[in-house]
Amino acid sequence: MLHIIGIGLSDETDITVKGLDIVRRVDRVYLEAYTSILLVDRCVLENFYGRDVIIADREMVECDDNQILQDAKTLDVAFLVVGDPFGATTHTDLVLRARKLNIRVSSVPNASILSAIGATGLQLYNFGQTVSMVFFTETWMPASFYDRIKENRDSGLHTLVLLDIKVKEQSLENMARGRKIYEEPRYMTVSQCALQMLAIDEKKTVIGEGGIYNEESLAVGAARVGSKTEKFICGTLKQLCHVDEALGKPLHSLVLLGQRTHELECEYLKEFAVDQDEWVKIWTRDYSGKS
Amino acid sequence: MLHIIGIGLSDETDITVKGLDIVRRVDRVYLEAYTSILLVDRCVLENFYGRDVIIADREMVECDDNQILQDAKTLDVAFLVVGDPFGATTHTDLVLRARKLNIRVSSVPNASILSAIGATGLQLYNFGQTVSMVFFTETWMPASFYDRIKENRDSGLHTLVLLDIKVKEQSLENMARGRKIYEEPRYMTVSQCALQMLAIDEKKTVIGEGGIYNEESLAVGAARVGSKTEKFICGTLKQLCHVDEALGKPLHSLVLLGQRTHELECEYLKEFAVDQDEWVKIWTRDYSGKS
Repeated sequence: MLHIIGIGLSDETDITVKGLDIVRRVDRVYLEAYTSILLVDRCVLENFYGRDVIIADREMVECDDNQILQDAKTLDVAFLVVGDPFGATTHTDLVLRARKLNIRVSSVPNASILSAIGATGLQLYNFGQTVSMVFFTETWMPASFYDRIKENRDSGLHTLVLLDIKVKEQSLENMARGRKIYEEPRYMTVSQCALQMLAIDEKKTVIGEGGIYNEESLAVGAARVGSKTEKFICGTLKQLCHVDEALGKPLHSLVLLGQRTHELECEYLKEFAVDQDEWVKIWTRDYSGKS
Repeated sequence: MLHIIGIGLSDETDITVKGLDIVRRVDRVYLEAYTSILLVDRCVLENFYGRDVIIADREMVECDDNQILQDAKTLDVAFLVVGDPFGATTHTDLVLRARKLNIRVSSVPNASILSAIGATGLQLYNFGQTVSMVFFTETWMPASFYDRIKENRDSGLHTLVLLDIKVKEQSLENMARGRKIYEEPRYMTVSQCALQMLAIDEKKTVIGEGGIYNEESLAVGAARVGSKTEKFICGTLKQLCHVDEALGKPLHSLVLLGQRTHELECEYLKEFAVDQDEWVKIWTRDYSGKS
């Protein structure tokens, strides 16, 4: 049987009691380590679980002849996923493979950034679709997120922006030469995201398709959501271009506000504002009662 | 200190190890029992935690002179919430009250229906805003959900519909007479929801505002998401009007599909279809490549 187990967002104690019971009795334990990361190292998990944990990179999980599913018809295999089991497409794909091999599948849910972001005080039913922001390069600045944000903002909805992580990536040169040498992991920060968002708006404005948001649009930067060191800073997109030091270590996420807001949200967030007066001024001018 | 702790979706073992540690050492433990319910009774929780658990109904939580926060500046109080701590507006309100009293607040996230619904195989980034469906009465059939679904479907997005629960409700007569007699709890089912959705579409069609969805729109009925007896049934809205027996006990939820779909979603869901041929036929005709 394949057990897909969410292990939550921050440390080894975020696993549920149900999940831990399973991890302690299965035959093999894998940790999916490329769509997100925990804030602690594998050895901390291994000590806590009392089990060896095999790191499953993208290659291993997406490979057709999948070692994870080997003998899983008779043995029990745990596949640990940071956050909730079904946050990433990859995992539904793994279930489909298992079904084809007649391997039974169970899953244990856990906290996901999609709901934990409620700790900002923003009402979860006022969120539209979630978007992803990737690291831009000189030649690659994908802007599809902009259209999604437009859809959300047209309905007055907040947008959660999930930020790129690069784990076990090869440089183009190493890839071309077939060298399995990997770059240092990189995690996008709130300020990098805010800068990229404004850059795309500028490009769109040039061709007459901009103005979905601007430097004065309100947003919330979030760091290490769900952990003891969770931190929120809110302000204009321009202000959020300079908050990385204050937010601290990864992982970061960003929420761009929609106009369908509630006074409670303003009050709740004010405590986290870069500049409380500015926050309330722009909220009152552009958000309150505007949807 | 006030600790707001998510306890997950189904039974006593869905609490995280971190959450359980806190519950076992605080001075008082409350369980919020009116915005959602666990599938097990309070006494099961009390046995598992080794603690008395005080049931907090709406009156207690929303009351200004709040016993939950009493002495919480010096004592530790745990406030348990089914699912994730910030799923309901009420709880941000409680945090704001605590802040005013200079009581420190921490929260422990957990699984929420908003992310656990990913177990249907539907991609979570293709969901728009979440809506709620209340029990209609002869004189009260609120249709605001319809406009929200329209916004989601205009962008091709899925809609999660959360279904009403009535816990500790008074009849109008008992309320009028000030008698604290409460009705049996009621939980809306998938079929009740599908029927109400079609009824509103019919009304809207009469005034020329209908057609956002129809009897042949595809949807997924979900029961006891996140538990060992989790069950999904998918089909047209018309088919879902007759699936309550097959789905079984509460809690139920429903997802109305948007057209921005992925072939993996079709394949994943087919296994749960009332009629697999019909499912694939309508998917191919109305959904695949239509966004």
